Amino acid sequence: MRKITIEDLEYISLGSTILGTGGGGDPYVGKLLAKNAIKNYGEVTLIKAEELADDALVVPIAAFGAPMILVEKLFSGNEFFSAFDMMESYLGRKIDAIMPAEAGGLNGVIPFAVAAKKRIPIVDADGMGRAFPRLEMVTFTLHGIPVSPITQADEKGNKNVYHTIDNVWGETLVGATTIQMGGSCAIGCYPMSGAQVKKAAVQGIISYAQSLGEAILNAKKNKKNPITSLIEKADAIQLFSGKISNVTIKTEGRWNKGVCEIMGLGQDSGSMMELDFQNEFLMAKKNGKPVAITPDLIVLLDAENAHPITAETIQYGTRVIVLGMKADKQWRTPAGIALGGPQKFGYTEEFVPVEKLNA
Amino acid sequence: MRKITIEDLEYISLGSTILGTGGGGDPYVGKLLAKNAIKNYGEVTLIKAEELADDALVVPIAAFGAPMILVEKLFSGNEFFSAFDMMESYLGRKIDAIMPAEAGGLNGVIPFAVAAKKRIPIVDADGMGRAFPRLEMVTFTLHGIPVSPITQADEKGNKNVYHTIDNVWGETLVGATTIQMGGSCAIGCYPMSGAQVKKAAVQGIISYAQSLGEAILNAKKNKKNPITSLIEKADAIQLFSGKISNVTIKTEGRWNKGVCEIMGLGQDSGSMMELDFQNEFLMAKKNGKPVAITPDLIVLLDAENAHPITAETIQYGTRVIVLGMKADKQWRTPAGIALGGPQKFGYTEEFVPVEKLNA
Repeated sequence: MRKITIEDLEYISLGSTILGTGGGGDPYVGKLLAKNAIKNYGEVTLIKAEELADDALVVPIAAFGAPMILVEKLFSGNEFFSAFDMMESYLGRKIDAIMPAEAGGLNGVIPFAVAAKKRIPIVDADGMGRAFPRLEMVTFTLHGIPVSPITQADEKGNKNVYHTIDNVWGETLVGATTIQMGGSCAIGCYPMSGAQVKKAAVQGIISYAQSLGEAILNAKKNKKNPITSLIEKADAIQLFSGKISNVTIKTEGRWNKGVCEIMGLGQDSGSMMELDFQNEFLMAKKNGKPVAITPDLIVLLDAENAHPITAETIQYGTRVIVLGMKADKQWRTPAGIALGGPQKFGYTEEFVPVEKLNA
Repeated sequence: MRKITIEDLEYISLGSTILGTGGGGDPYVGKLLAKNAIKNYGEVTLIKAEELADDALVVPIAAFGAPMILVEKLFSGNEFFSAFDMMESYLGRKIDAIMPAEAGGLNGVIPFAVAAKKRIPIVDADGMGRAFPRLEMVTFTLHGIPVSPITQADEKGNKNVYHTIDNVWGETLVGATTIQMGGSCAIGCYPMSGAQVKKAAVQGIISYAQSLGEAILNAKKNKKNPITSLIEKADAIQLFSGKISNVTIKTEGRWNKGVCEIMGLGQDSGSMMELDFQNEFLMAKKNGKPVAITPDLIVLLDAENAHPITAETIQYGTRVIVLGMKADKQWRTPAGIALGGPQKFGYTEEFVPVEKLNA
């Protein structure tokens, strides 16, 4: 158990963007909401899953939508409190702790705003250890935990509750209304017990995100190169170094889809890299051959300062470094690969761990 | 108060198809469900709105979707009971009576299945006096009655509750998920008090539908022509007589849209009629000039037996009669015309009552 300060939030926010693997929505707006809530209501307590009572009620609260819209369409903040209140009212009991559904991107910081206002702790765990584009793509699904009831609120005041027959239907139905709502909303989902959090979640992910942010922002103080510092902390593999030479992106429903092309520089001079994305980067190919494949993490960094670049903010000409990072071990099981691996996104390539592809 | 028998249901079903004005979904499947429920659970009591206690809870239960799909995709029946049960559970009280949301089409008979099983009465009233393609297009909206909470269930077991900020948002969000559900579902909506039913609903509409069905089916017994018999009973105007010469139809989201062309015969020889529809017939033009405009009812009949033809079952070469019928007086007010009139469907023509257009 420890208190999260506004300074901690800076590191967590940056680390969440790394774990966002190009998607997850830029945490900037979420960070503002969270900082504001901490200023108004006091610091938030971060607890480990093991500190939860087995029968505690834990609910992930998240922003839901296309990353490009999550950045452009401002949240009022109230929709997250609504999603929280509806869940308490629907279940007829108090929520004991909040958890991020995904620690990657915006959803790594949004829960702090809710936790501060509701004066309840955040669990240092999530359902991904990264970001993913679909609601059912969480380790909770691998453990048979239902996404329902799902509570949904938008900034206009629409408030719905879904009880779907499985987790894929949760994505289908909530996705359909989210598009009508203008492309974004707040949801409460996967209500679960403390015992379930201990078993099913990716543990320690908020502290891990914070440590990644610290590795980048404190590198100078430690007389290190921020890229090297991040690679060491994340046990990452440098996949490519180059300059953005092209990017195509389109919003399809609640997804940003596209390809980012990078022209090699320095040691990669004469080579090309392609990063496919559907919200998140899913496949990195160097000269046509895969070098990192979902569910492993593909991270695009600004070569100057090691700050992560999300897919919707990629700009022609930027000098970049591409890293590959190992997914949490739950994603590397056959069930994990079936849920978050390349076949799920229509690729014919089989999943091969990033360290093997680059051995 | 009177008991509705299986024989009554035959008349009501036929009359509902007349009031369906080409849309509303063919009542055939609904009639089977209702007959079956009456066989299993006993006859249903039809009551007048004035027999309701002012504080009674009345809930319209309806099928929701594109008419073409409502006909092709079978209901299990359970989704209607689910929508009912969810409403009771969400509101935390027993429903005292059911009401059709629209007496036109499938939704004129579906409520009988629920009423029989739940052993509660049906109110002889609805929110349209016809069928309309959108959830907010009810007289309840004219009286400021909210559509929410809306309960929604599909045949697979998905169950949702919507609390929308207005009635148009109800259509938008429930419409979006209905498409994902395969194009049809069951809903409970516009929960209201007995006092509200007395004020806001179209009164006596089930008995009226029954009388239209009787006018057609008993015409022979009364030695009348069924068309003449229906025209007298409905105070209808014969707009056209001819043969279907063309029909274009497409399903867009949850709407069947298209145009039906009729080549004149007999007294209309040399003339053409066009019927535009979006689920329901919205505009009848004779030689390019409007002769009936929504919210007035446009009814397409088989010239042989006066049986109504729904838009999705129109067949080339059928000999037909087109009737115009006056909409309920609530629809002919400025607010009613704004909600269900031609501008709402994108027409530039102003509403003119059918009796004036054909004076």
